[in-house]
Amino acid sequence: MAKTAVTLGIDIGGTNTKLGLVNNAGRCVISKSIPTYAEENLDTFLDHLFKTVEEITEPVAEHFEIKAVGIGAPNANFYSGCIEEAPNLKWGKLVPLVEIVEEKIKLPTVLTNDANAAAIGEMLFGVAKGMKNFIVITLGTGLGSGIVVNGELVYGHDGFAGELGHVTVIPEGRDHTTGLKGSLETYVSATGIKRTVFELLSLRIHPSRLREVSFNNLVAKDIATAAQEGDLIATEAFEYTGKILGVALANSVAHLSPEAIILFGGLANAGDLLLDPTKKHFEKNLLHIFRNKVKITLSDLKGDNTAVLGAGALAWKNFEG
Amino acid sequence: MAKTAVTLGIDIGGTNTKLGLVNNAGRCVISKSIPTYAEENLDTFLDHLFKTVEEITEPVAEHFEIKAVGIGAPNANFYSGCIEEAPNLKWGKLVPLVEIVEEKIKLPTVLTNDANAAAIGEMLFGVAKGMKNFIVITLGTGLGSGIVVNGELVYGHDGFAGELGHVTVIPEGRDHTTGLKGSLETYVSATGIKRTVFELLSLRIHPSRLREVSFNNLVAKDIATAAQEGDLIATEAFEYTGKILGVALANSVAHLSPEAIILFGGLANAGDLLLDPTKKHFEKNLLHIFRNKVKITLSDLKGDNTAVLGAGALAWKNFEG
Repeated sequence: MAKTAVTLGIDIGGTNTKLGLVNNAGRCVISKSIPTYAEENLDTFLDHLFKTVEEITEPVAEHFEIKAVGIGAPNANFYSGCIEEAPNLKWGKLVPLVEIVEEKIKLPTVLTNDANAAAIGEMLFGVAKGMKNFIVITLGTGLGSGIVVNGELVYGHDGFAGELGHVTVIPEGRDHTTGLKGSLETYVSATGIKRTVFELLSLRIHPSRLREVSFNNLVAKDIATAAQEGDLIATEAFEYTGKILGVALANSVAHLSPEAIILFGGLANAGDLLLDPTKKHFEKNLLHIFRNKVKITLSDLKGDNTAVLGAGALAWKNFEG
Repeated sequence: MAKTAVTLGIDIGGTNTKLGLVNNAGRCVISKSIPTYAEENLDTFLDHLFKTVEEITEPVAEHFEIKAVGIGAPNANFYSGCIEEAPNLKWGKLVPLVEIVEEKIKLPTVLTNDANAAAIGEMLFGVAKGMKNFIVITLGTGLGSGIVVNGELVYGHDGFAGELGHVTVIPEGRDHTTGLKGSLETYVSATGIKRTVFELLSLRIHPSRLREVSFNNLVAKDIATAAQEGDLIATEAFEYTGKILGVALANSVAHLSPEAIILFGGLANAGDLLLDPTKKHFEKNLLHIFRNKVKITLSDLKGDNTAVLGAGALAWKNFEG
């Protein structure tokens, strides 16, 4: 029996790294998670990574043929194949990951950041199937993005295009660890909405169950739950988050005139709580020629393996045309 | 003797339309200007246009062979070949200009907005020669832009990408005829800097020669002259304009990571008055990975025919590969 062609997708996060085999229908057929060992040296991580690749692939070697490897990682540069100055990984300034993996696994390997990989996942297997111009926004602890123009991911001159989390939305606004002020990520992300809740707790006088929770203990999911139960602070926090996101996305449309913008990740799970105010302020801030043309929609990729799927899709896209 | 291949470039402005023959070295060899007849019906304009094309081309028919036609026009849609709802032209909601011109002149014809044409002019004949990723900003009465990614102009899903004049830079800021508030064009353009001067005249107490001039009589060139002579209001107006532009361009870099941003048009003639504050605030608002990498530079295309050159370049780009 002929082997099924798959790619190996690897998603390196700040805490965990997931890897799995992805077939050309966008199914993650086998997967596994390991710690990222972000605070230890690179070799510790690589030893575990390659051991796990063997564990995954050897038992199924007669069924699957791995064609290529795709990796999503923070601060990853598509052109150089390196992770460059990732603030949350203590592996050195420049990690030539593509070179290392190709030497060890002997398969063509491609690397990009996790949001770019998510965009390719949407294009090959998700709601962006068939679209040539779209933007994916990943809403997790931070805000990432992947931009597709004419059916190709935009990497820009140096490989780092698509950093929409770092556009300025409020001049002289909130501080960010980057040193920038008022960037989108400080408002629209799990961390951003938490900051908004605390701003609103200072401004408003409504009672709110969120007044019982410390900054460090508050998580975005609890804000969503509170809003669903009618908490006024939580509701206003989503309204404000959507307003900032809507204006920022309207600005992205003025750049790129995409067919759709796809929201992906933890905060996007809040659904209409976030989507309704986002759409309202988005339309309001669009130039007339763009109005009622650009869909804002949630990712329909489900399950725990969407990041691995993105990384696997990246490999499919780059090595199988 | 073999004929020299040229394209016919046509730049339709709100007041005048320029047309000329452009060779493949980026020289505009013959040109002429006619009124745009924006307030009259389309046929009046077309009669004059086609008559002028004959006047230009017939006397030199044995020297030049026209290969294609490129047209830059307001609200022009590359995909449809139509001018769509241009507010300053009274020719109807939808003008199928490519179809009309191809039928009359029997040559392949392509249409886009003037800023996109300027970007292609820079790519083929100007400072962007050899660049694959860059942005052109046209600073005239308004602010236009053309974006190039991977060596191709970005038109987006509907043909209208690259409207950077209409990104929001100051939430709830200055009014615009579009109905948007706080868009870039209301701050950074000949009109925008004039508005800034009037805001500063209200805020500051310095004496200034600009206190003698009415809003309707003030032109951007006079603000530049005043600044060069040390006028504090005019100087601060350029500083503020550059600040707003610098932040907006940093946001564009976060989207696209271009190699360069090229400033083109009347207000760009102010040179370092605008360039210095723009570069300062640009660098300050860039994410660290982009710092000291992206050039901001002035167009080096000279003379009265740069718009025709852009339109001619558009035809070269689309029909001669």
